[in-house]
Amino acid sequence: MTQKPPPPDIVIGRLPIYLRALDALRQENSEITSSYELGERLGISSAQIRKDLSHFGDFGKQGTGYHIPYLIEQIQQILKLNHRWAVVIVGAGHVGLALANYRDFNQYGFDIVGIFDTDPAKIGTEINGIAVQHESRMVDEVQRHKVRIAMIATPAAAAQPSADKLVAAGVKAILSYAPITLNLPPDVKVQYIDPVARLQHMTYYIQE
Amino acid sequence: MTQKPPPPDIVIGRLPIYLRALDALRQENSEITSSYELGERLGISSAQIRKDLSHFGDFGKQGTGYHIPYLIEQIQQILKLNHRWAVVIVGAGHVGLALANYRDFNQYGFDIVGIFDTDPAKIGTEINGIAVQHESRMVDEVQRHKVRIAMIATPAAAAQPSADKLVAAGVKAILSYAPITLNLPPDVKVQYIDPVARLQHMTYYIQE
Repeated sequence: MTQKPPPPDIVIGRLPIYLRALDALRQENSEITSSYELGERLGISSAQIRKDLSHFGDFGKQGTGYHIPYLIEQIQQILKLNHRWAVVIVGAGHVGLALANYRDFNQYGFDIVGIFDTDPAKIGTEINGIAVQHESRMVDEVQRHKVRIAMIATPAAAAQPSADKLVAAGVKAILSYAPITLNLPPDVKVQYIDPVARLQHMTYYIQE
Repeated sequence: MTQKPPPPDIVIGRLPIYLRALDALRQENSEITSSYELGERLGISSAQIRKDLSHFGDFGKQGTGYHIPYLIEQIQQILKLNHRWAVVIVGAGHVGLALANYRDFNQYGFDIVGIFDTDPAKIGTEINGIAVQHESRMVDEVQRHKVRIAMIATPAAAAQPSADKLVAAGVKAILSYAPITLNLPPDVKVQYIDPVARLQHMTYYIQE
């Protein structure tokens, strides 16, 4: 018996991109698509798309393309998006505020169940219908809602202590906007959003 | 004469991360570091760091490590960060507001010189000292300030038309927060920030 190797992380990272494109196609009332059409939209080669999807099964017939609603459902299942996820936001500054007001989380199955800060002036204020709570309430709330996902939007110095508390309370995935690398146990996933680093990546290519 | 192949894009993308870590070390008054210390901080192997840096030259002596201010200067030069860059923001919603208020842009050499929107209620309001202007002013302002970098924080439907105008006005790098893939000429770099896709990437790994 041979066991298939696990799909590379970079492939997992492209599945949400495919999902976005499939969703857009569905909203345009398409029912069938091809790796060529998806590739065209995404600037990815059709061969890459076919290869990526082949890690998870056989989702289309040669020559007839992919059935969009079916492929959406399959990718959602692979990414465990067939149920809703509770999420907390740490930090109610400008970034936390933007995150709390971002409609796509709710639309794509992520429910913001708590926002935490340490600034007394912010505690009790409402953002998008959710009251900001003191960070001392965070561990209890994460446990009560069985939260597995957190977004950190604190200043750099507060990010590691917040992450430690979140992990101790059961969080398994962190999306961090703080510009530092977090030190986390191996079973906790982390992704960073750092717009400065993204700009610095692109300036390399600008011909002056 | 053999010519070195250009460094892979993924290596360019790691340089800003190294820069962040080096900057943190400098702020802690360190003067010398090693690929081991950097690797420890960043969760990247020291061999990877040495290999990445070797694409650009020889920045440290065997056994003595890297001189931090010198390495910072070298990476800044590679990434063309040895002068300031003018940047515009398109969209003055929650994300545009968070971007305009984000202090690190200024600190790392990016000057926000314009914020544009189409909502009459927003035109003329000030965000972090910059007046929001009507989008019809955008092309003129981009040309006047010789802006090469833009951040798009519009709804999905407005992103492509905005990108087309920015590119026509001379923009060469776009950081887009709109959840669609932009269609751009090959000499224009684009990066996407999509927190939903990042969460969907991580849910794959969460054991329930």
